[in-house]
Amino acid sequence: MLLEPIRWQKNRIVFIDQTKLPGRLKYIRCRDIDVLCEAIKKLKIRGAPLIGVAVALGYALAALNSKSKTMKGMEKDLVRASARLKATRPTAVNLFWALKRMDDTFFCKRDSPRPEGSALPRTFRPRSPRPFAMTRLKKAILKEALSILKEDREMCRAIGRNGSRLIKNGDIVLTHCNAGMLATAGYGTALSIFYEAKKQGKRFMVYADETRPLMQGSRLTMWELMRNRIDATLICDDMSAATIRDKGITKIIVGADRIARNGDAANKIGTYGLAVLAKYHGIPFYIAAPSSTIDKNIATGKDIPIEERKREELIYVGSKQTAPSRAKVYNPAFDVTPAKLITAIITESGVYDIKSFRRI
Amino acid sequence: MLLEPIRWQKNRIVFIDQTKLPGRLKYIRCRDIDVLCEAIKKLKIRGAPLIGVAVALGYALAALNSKSKTMKGMEKDLVRASARLKATRPTAVNLFWALKRMDDTFFCKRDSPRPEGSALPRTFRPRSPRPFAMTRLKKAILKEALSILKEDREMCRAIGRNGSRLIKNGDIVLTHCNAGMLATAGYGTALSIFYEAKKQGKRFMVYADETRPLMQGSRLTMWELMRNRIDATLICDDMSAATIRDKGITKIIVGADRIARNGDAANKIGTYGLAVLAKYHGIPFYIAAPSSTIDKNIATGKDIPIEERKREELIYVGSKQTAPSRAKVYNPAFDVTPAKLITAIITESGVYDIKSFRRI
Repeated sequence: MLLEPIRWQKNRIVFIDQTKLPGRLKYIRCRDIDVLCEAIKKLKIRGAPLIGVAVALGYALAALNSKSKTMKGMEKDLVRASARLKATRPTAVNLFWALKRMDDTFFCKRDSPRPEGSALPRTFRPRSPRPFAMTRLKKAILKEALSILKEDREMCRAIGRNGSRLIKNGDIVLTHCNAGMLATAGYGTALSIFYEAKKQGKRFMVYADETRPLMQGSRLTMWELMRNRIDATLICDDMSAATIRDKGITKIIVGADRIARNGDAANKIGTYGLAVLAKYHGIPFYIAAPSSTIDKNIATGKDIPIEERKREELIYVGSKQTAPSRAKVYNPAFDVTPAKLITAIITESGVYDIKSFRRI
Repeated sequence: MLLEPIRWQKNRIVFIDQTKLPGRLKYIRCRDIDVLCEAIKKLKIRGAPLIGVAVALGYALAALNSKSKTMKGMEKDLVRASARLKATRPTAVNLFWALKRMDDTFFCKRDSPRPEGSALPRTFRPRSPRPFAMTRLKKAILKEALSILKEDREMCRAIGRNGSRLIKNGDIVLTHCNAGMLATAGYGTALSIFYEAKKQGKRFMVYADETRPLMQGSRLTMWELMRNRIDATLICDDMSAATIRDKGITKIIVGADRIARNGDAANKIGTYGLAVLAKYHGIPFYIAAPSSTIDKNIATGKDIPIEERKREELIYVGSKQTAPSRAKVYNPAFDVTPAKLITAIITESGVYDIKSFRRI
């Protein structure tokens, strides 16, 4: 059952409000990027690949909404939109990757607006405010955003196919946070592997960490695994060590938000601890992520900015107060797992151990 | 500021309902063991040493409440009460230790009720239903329960004194669950060390794990550390690995619910994972517990029964649903940390590395 956590419909972005899950599957129709930025900040939309797709669609929305009649004006509108989208969350690189691709499309199409083979005169001035050029440009921008969405879905399927080779009958796999359909435009990264393995008839079990403080594991991963009839069991994050040892976990597979050139990977807080536990218990630890998550500009994990989120996430769950109001809190949203603890990185193009990953 | 999580007042047990913290400091006056058993099952009273004290007072309450006019009848009442108290929680050994001590008191006093130096005739029949013998026996039972309470408090202070020698200026200590005043009759075990070190003027910081699912770390440890002006910061359980590495944790100190003869220690779920993380990061890992937590009848941690609690603890937090209603759940309340991962065990009589622990 493919989910569409985000889609483009009648010039609007329609997305699932993930903060309402598992209680309610609520879609939000969004007509401006204010709503989109707020949704990303509040994790109504989350998951590195999905954030990438969302900001691409947001960029397209900003282009379509631009009332400017000059190229200069539209550029201004898009630069502003892009800056606001960039300011939502700092760690997932897919966001910056997608916005760069959208920017490239805009500048490239603006500077050479003549369709191939068209018979426009050589005297055509690229920055002229002619309405048909503007419309064509907006269309091209939207087309690029929709390509990003479609490619993400295809990359996820390919990750599933590549990773499914690692799943054996009888495997008991631990996963953390949500690297599923809900984290992407569909299928998922780590969870895509489970869906593909299940389709191939393999028998295996999954344990899902709750993933405090925002509980993407219990709220989202359990919800989508159950929906897809994967044999899944929920544990709290502090149960993972005992579960690995006492329930015989055979491998750990998680997603990533940004992977440095050397293979160090930032992912949801808690991932680093799981990698240490995998090492101690002698089981493999895999990262599954599309290549848009790889940041070739960054040499090691030390350079990945780690988002710290607000303290209230640890003081309340819903309306229930779970800590003293004035408690001092440390609330990093991600941690960096050093490459040496990662057995292999699974992307759409293959399964790479760290040595071969560094060569790609 | 000494807290009294439990006390004996006008023939009633008065205890803090710990499920109401940190929002409200509510005391419950309890006149029968039904209320007490329910309170222990629901973790209104929790923490291995405190459970020991509570069941001892419960035993005394049952003795005082016994309307039986014969020793045989009173024995029956106490055996029944003891069985019900024993059935509340299986892992903490202090419960069984305290009840055995109470049973011993009952049988010993019943069989030799003559006070030392008293002039009772030799023909005195121990099992006679004479009212003064019954009253004296009940008093002796209550006295024993109150001794257990007083001794627990003294043991905790001694643990604090012994453990405080390990705290150095500049230390950043991680703790898990609540091994504090609220887990004992006062002072605490692991946290007693912090209170003593603070009294000695040492400068150090504490990070407290939230401790899912029942959040004893955020609800109780943070509350009592802040109350005692210890510099404390709250993290989620899945943040502990990153905090150890990125915030430079220098040692981990936790409590225990049962320690086997070889030094394997059962403690709140999550402890084992922290011990692995301590090993990986090369920092010491300490267990602080009174000797009533040591179970000499058990050779290794494999023989310690681990309580599994109900699934609802992972499906809801307060009224907020955090996982699908029908999610499969694994919810062990404790895990066993093997002795090889424990640097030392801190008791009221000293600090023992595992080798010397095995000799005591």
